[in-house]
Amino acid sequence: MRLVKVAAAQMGPIQKADDRQTVVARMVELLRKAAEAGCDLVVYPELALTTFFPRWYMTSEDEVDAWFETEMPNEATRPLFELAAASRIAISFGYAERTPEGRHFNTAIMTDRAGRIIGRYRKIHLPGHREVDPARPHQHLEKRYFEPGDLGFPVWRNLDGILGMCICNDRRWPETYRVMGLQGVEMIVLGYNTPATNSHAADEPPARRLFHHRLVIQAGAYQNSTWVVAVAKAGTEDGHPLFGGTAIVHPNGEIVAEAQTLEDELVVHACDLDATRFGKATIFDFAAHRRIEHYGLITSRTGAIPPEQAAHGTKE
Amino acid sequence: MRLVKVAAAQMGPIQKADDRQTVVARMVELLRKAAEAGCDLVVYPELALTTFFPRWYMTSEDEVDAWFETEMPNEATRPLFELAAASRIAISFGYAERTPEGRHFNTAIMTDRAGRIIGRYRKIHLPGHREVDPARPHQHLEKRYFEPGDLGFPVWRNLDGILGMCICNDRRWPETYRVMGLQGVEMIVLGYNTPATNSHAADEPPARRLFHHRLVIQAGAYQNSTWVVAVAKAGTEDGHPLFGGTAIVHPNGEIVAEAQTLEDELVVHACDLDATRFGKATIFDFAAHRRIEHYGLITSRTGAIPPEQAAHGTKE
Repeated sequence: MRLVKVAAAQMGPIQKADDRQTVVARMVELLRKAAEAGCDLVVYPELALTTFFPRWYMTSEDEVDAWFETEMPNEATRPLFELAAASRIAISFGYAERTPEGRHFNTAIMTDRAGRIIGRYRKIHLPGHREVDPARPHQHLEKRYFEPGDLGFPVWRNLDGILGMCICNDRRWPETYRVMGLQGVEMIVLGYNTPATNSHAADEPPARRLFHHRLVIQAGAYQNSTWVVAVAKAGTEDGHPLFGGTAIVHPNGEIVAEAQTLEDELVVHACDLDATRFGKATIFDFAAHRRIEHYGLITSRTGAIPPEQAAHGTKE
Repeated sequence: MRLVKVAAAQMGPIQKADDRQTVVARMVELLRKAAEAGCDLVVYPELALTTFFPRWYMTSEDEVDAWFETEMPNEATRPLFELAAASRIAISFGYAERTPEGRHFNTAIMTDRAGRIIGRYRKIHLPGHREVDPARPHQHLEKRYFEPGDLGFPVWRNLDGILGMCICNDRRWPETYRVMGLQGVEMIVLGYNTPATNSHAADEPPARRLFHHRLVIQAGAYQNSTWVVAVAKAGTEDGHPLFGGTAIVHPNGEIVAEAQTLEDELVVHACDLDATRFGKATIFDFAAHRRIEHYGLITSRTGAIPPEQAAHGTKE
């Protein structure tokens, strides 16, 4: 047994007017509870320090940059890092990162038990669009405010295991999990802000949205025999509902713990990293079963090309 | 609307002693019922003509080759092809293929409405092992009797749509669906023979086995916005139980029809191929969202390599 007691620290809504200090105080309170529960790792949502600002269309560079952090830790988050280090608890959370060169990323970091940042991930699968789309009841402007991540999908040795990160929409893409699976990942932590309605299909039932969320995290866990810890920002931000569904998924694909509210809530489970071994040694023993010679299109072709336009697949 | 009325033709068990003629008579009966129901396509299981012989350890080449077909159609299957052509119904089924060169594959074919074979697929992800494994309560010797498929994952224009095939264990691998998704696939048909118990873990509950089956076909459908038609050989073959679970999955990932028995049974659904458009144009618009520059490991690395042994992912 290699137990990592994880707290998936779901956060309720953050309104546009809420400042960083108020939000970090909530994160500190969740961390305090996790420490009482004897947790080793606390995972917070994507863009944990602010409202999900990509729903707002902005044209002023200053107005945009106000949502970004230029260093981490910074003054606002220092209390969180200090309590984490004092409690010997590793943490992971997402925030909007502005680099010294002025580049903008949707980023997550992970610390070790000493509160040192040992891992940084920048979101690769940015959903949404760049300009206002009048056909949508709400906007989702991630492609406007961020550039795609440039760090790949690394994994890190931490807490006696192999941990990886991804963010929100990354979880819908099997490539995300597989690239980490090929590095032996044992736990993937991810935060998300997912609207409760589909901006392309107002009639999509909320239950189907939650079904898709569970489907992709469960499949990603099972198909790579890894724990997945998926943490929501939930509830209604300035009139825009986000679904919850914070969940911890076993390497066999089953959900072992799930949030009950749309508010600040800890979902705790003691995850045995050795539970990843069975799947990795049997049905998902990649070395025994994968046939990379037939996967070429996955890395050579970005968009779909139907067969009349492509040579591949038209021979018969 | 581009409706394809599909019959997933689940087959009950085939005992070792049953001959091809007896089995094909059952397939013909299912085809007759599908014709009465106005179906356009009938999909049968993997290795539809015989028992799942890879559970038996054989050393005699003649004994092995007796399970293989050297041409298709052949005398035994001709009645099926003739009725399909007369009914203007496309069919797909699996069988053990021995080529003129003496190569052995776990194969599936697809016909057009005229009964002509227009597609051939050879199973790529062979599960199991090569020699008797005394630790297993039952054997699964696919790696002994077949070589991995050599045709990739092609798709074909058929029935006014873009159709693809895979077989059994292929459905657990996201690469299978993605390679076809990148060719615009609108319906993937697949047959399977899946033991109701895990030969590596006798205590694995049957419900989890079925959960994994549904999880992977639903994720594959959703993540590529394609119909998936998954057809079981079910029931107990010479004392060895196979689970059923024949299902038709909508491009939104939801199961729209499912078998109720472990016997010969038609599961029918009129599938609108245009229902694949929504997902392909929005959240799974590959051209807009995929980032192949970060997927390299998927095609460059077969087995998993933990980070202390690999350069990738150890920079931080």
